[in-house]
Parts: sequence; structure tokens; C-alpha cells
Amino acid sequence: MIYLDNNATTQIDPAAVEAMLPFLTTSYANPSSGYQFAAEARRALEQARGQLAGALGCQPAEIVFTSGGTEANNAAINSALQFEPRGKHIVTTAVEHSAVRRHCQELMKRGAEVTFLGVDASGDLDLAELEESIRPETAIVSVMWANNETGVIFPVEKIAEICQRRRVFLHTDAVQVVGKISLRLQETAINFLSLSAHKFHGPKGVGALYIRSGTRFLPSLIGGSHENGRRASTENVASIIGMGKAAEIVARNIGEEQERVGALRDRFEADLLGKVPGIFINGMRARRL
Amino acid sequence: MIYLDNNATTQIDPAAVEAMLPFLTTSYANPSSGYQFAAEARRALEQARGQLAGALGCQPAEIVFTSGGTEANNAAINSALQFEPRGKHIVTTAVEHSAVRRHCQELMKRGAEVTFLGVDASGDLDLAELEESIRPETAIVSVMWANNETGVIFPVEKIAEICQRRRVFLHTDAVQVVGKISLRLQETAINFLSLSAHKFHGPKGVGALYIRSGTRFLPSLIGGSHENGRRASTENVASIIGMGKAAEIVARNIGEEQERVGALRDRFEADLLGKVPGIFINGMRARRL
Repeated sequence: MIYLDNNATTQIDPAAVEAMLPFLTTSYANPSSGYQFAAEARRALEQARGQLAGALGCQPAEIVFTSGGTEANNAAINSALQFEPRGKHIVTTAVEHSAVRRHCQELMKRGAEVTFLGVDASGDLDLAELEESIRPETAIVSVMWANNETGVIFPVEKIAEICQRRRVFLHTDAVQVVGKISLRLQETAINFLSLSAHKFHGPKGVGALYIRSGTRFLPSLIGGSHENGRRASTENVASIIGMGKAAEIVARNIGEEQERVGALRDRFEADLLGKVPGIFINGMRARRL
Repeated sequence: MIYLDNNATTQIDPAAVEAMLPFLTTSYANPSSGYQFAAEARRALEQARGQLAGALGCQPAEIVFTSGGTEANNAAINSALQFEPRGKHIVTTAVEHSAVRRHCQELMKRGAEVTFLGVDASGDLDLAELEESIRPETAIVSVMWANNETGVIFPVEKIAEICQRRRVFLHTDAVQVVGKISLRLQETAINFLSLSAHKFHGPKGVGALYIRSGTRFLPSLIGGSHENGRRASTENVASIIGMGKAAEIVARNIGEEQERVGALRDRFEADLLGKVPGIFINGMRARRL
């Protein structure tokens, strides 16, 4: 089998599985417990947070672990809408993943207003149109970093500058980007970023929301004071540790993977274009993953 | 080490870890994908749903997988509040887990009214007081099945009869109960029940919400059409399979475990009461786990 569906999910890196195993067997304490046996799990969680922060180029305290990309996407938008008294309007695109697009459609039924920006024939956004769509009552702009079908990369750093100047939150769904392009979040003005471990050779059912230091946030899951009060629920210890390890590995090899996979893609596309009459590739002229 | 904190978390059953391993290694497809390789993961998910339904005495279609007890608790209450146009009032108890108690306190800040019922010296609820607290604008009653500190069991089946008669939803946080008392949900009128795998020798970071057939529900996580439209997000395949296996095992051994652990508890308590002056045990006279 040649597996070509790595945008749907990836195989877990064997090193990530190996890192998880002690926490599925002998080291089973609840990290919230106060005794020494639980400190082992707490330390491992914080190590994973550091590994993920390293891959994102941000501070560990800016990371909140979640159950995946959907929860992270929903939580960022819900928080912005609840927090801003003026917040009734969302700016997003017509090509978002359903965890943003359908969520926004659902929020419209509950009174929110949403602008869905279109893209041109090569899959690109018009940044002037984006800026014009921001209103005084806009709570958040949510634009994916790269599209899950075409691989087209949106200029999220530039969008972040617009949002910062217009004093509106920016959220980006970066589920397809982590491990594929090098990230230095501390050099951007992005407020919220969502990721999912199983897209970069980590386990399914775990992800994270990056919340830029100083960005106000209201949690979606309420209960215990886990994740510094930003996400209640007993931590998914083993999976978080697997995600940390996977993040460390993809960040370390990102340059050579870009070259290797880029060459494979170009050869595959060239073969298809040469051999199949009438074929065309969506977004081929745009900057792509 | 003698581990005595099984209400905080439990060690995963080795058979559950073994069932998980193929889905952390070779069988890595996304169950939402349309090809044959993904059907394996889909079948395993449905097998786990059947195992869990068997342990709960309900139909597989009544189970929605979640990231744990907190998400399930939050989702049931959020749904009832959003759904019922009259819904502005919640009846719950002062001894709920923080995933219900703090969530209700947060909802009060957003306009909900909440009645927190107290318990008597042996940890029991007054059912007449509970019934009197239900008003026309009550959206949901949420009462835990057993308390996580005292082990006191609340008469949830009787409360379900009251709620059914008064036409109000009943949610129960059964996180401490699954695997400890035998459940036959189809013989009750409970609308929503929350559980968490890591409390019954399954993995952390996974749980479920039972939604009685015919009970209206609005999802908390919105995006893809996973879980029959009731909870978006790529399924936590390996952990769900571990939860299913763990549920099957605890349900099979429930009678002998009750006797074995009950005898250990009674001996431990008798020793403490005989040897430590001035000691008393909270809830000792109530029906307990």
C-alpha cells in the first residue's frame, strides 16, 4: 500500500508510541493528584508542552491542550464571541474546514453575523476585501493557515498585522501547517492557533490551542482548574506526551521533509499533467504546502 | 506501593492496552475516510460502542463518544439550556463534581438560575425538596449517581421518575458508578448520563455521553458529521477501543468485584475506627459504592 491521504491522518511516529507506553501502563497517576507518584505525569505533561512550544516558536504557557483541532477551533471563536460585548460579527472564508465553517453557520442561527470571504481561481484571498469586511462589532477574524484540499497557504502573518492594526482578534486553523512549514509564533500577532496531533504523526484525539500571551480567553470546558484554568478535564496524559514527541520530531526534520515531499509532489503532478488529457490542479499557481 | 486513589484514576487494564496497540501503530486510517483501509477503524469503533452499550444496558446508538467526563457533563447541560426556549433554570446539588458545579456557577454569570440542593449529615438528598425546586422554566436536573469523595449513591432512578413526571430532562454524572454498580439504563427514564474511561481501567482523555433515544440534543462541538452529527472531531480511535474493552471487562466482573472491594473497605474502615480515636467516616450510614 502507498498511503497518499496524509492530510486526512498520518501514521503515528513509532518514537511517539514508545514515549506514550509508560503512561498507558505503569505511570498511570492522575496528574492533578498531590503525591509523588503523580509528579511524574505532571513533569511529562510539562515536557510535552515545551516540545510543542519549541515546534511553534512560542512560550509553553501559551499552549492549552485540547481533544483535537475541532475543539480548539470552536473554543477560540466561542471565547471571542462571549468575551467582547461588541462581538456579534465574525470574518472568515468560504474554504475553511467544517470545524470553523459549520460552527460559524450554527452561530448565525444563534444571532451572530458572519462574513464568508471567497477565494479567486488560484485559491487566494483578497486582503483588501478582508480588511474592508472588518466592522466595529467584529469579534474575531478566523482564516486557516493552509487549505486541507488544495494546500494553498494564506498570508496569515499579513492578516495578523491587519487584525492587530484594526484591534480585532485573529484565529488561524493551522491543522494542516504544523510540521510542514516552519513556525515562529512569537514573531507574529496571531492571537489563537489550532492544531491537531494526528496530522503530524501524533495520536488521534489530542490537539492544542495556542493563546498568545495577553489575549483574553474564556474556556469552553468548565470544571477543574486544569491547564491553568483554561480547559477543565483530566489530561489525556499519554496522548499529550505522544503529541509532544511527534512535534519535536517534525520540527527537527522540517527542512529536509519540505524538499523531499516537494520533489515527490512535483514529479507526481508533472506525470499526471503529461499523461492525463484535460487535467488541471487546483491552486497550482498559488503558494502551497 | 498500595494504590488507594482509584476514584482519582485507575491503572489501564492490560487487555485494554493490547486492544489499543494496533490502532496506535498499523491501523492508523481516519475512520471518516471512504476507502477499505478506513473501514477497519470504523468497525472497531462500532464494536467499542457495542461493548460500552452492553455495560450500560442501553442501545449503541444512544452513546456519543467524548473527550471525558467534563465534556459530557458540560455538553448535556449546555444542550438543555440552549434547546428549551423556557430553559433558564437548573436544579443540581451542592456536592457535584466541579465539572457540573463550577459549570453551573459560570452559567449563572451568563443569566441562568441555579438551585443547589444540600445534603444531610449522612450525605443524602431530600427528594421532596428536589421535586419542589422544579419550576416551569427548569431546563434540566443534574444529580450525580454517586459522590466521588464519600461514595454515597443518590437514588437516580427515583429522581428520573420525578423528572419524567414533571417533564424535565435529567442528567446524571455517573463517572464514579460505571464498573461499580450494575446499570440497566433502558429500564430508567434518565435522559443524559456522563462517564469517563479512566475511572474504570480505560485510558485517560476519553469518555461518553449517553443520550436516551428520543431526547433532543444540540452538540457542543460543531464541524464534521462524526458521531451521527452529535460530536464533531476525528474520533480518538485507539482510546475509544480501550474504553470499550475496559467496559466489557468491568461489566463482566462487577458482582465479584463488589464483594471483594466491599470486604476490603469494611475491614479497612473497621480497623481505622478501632485504632484511631475520634475518627468518623462521612456517609457511613448511607448506601455507598
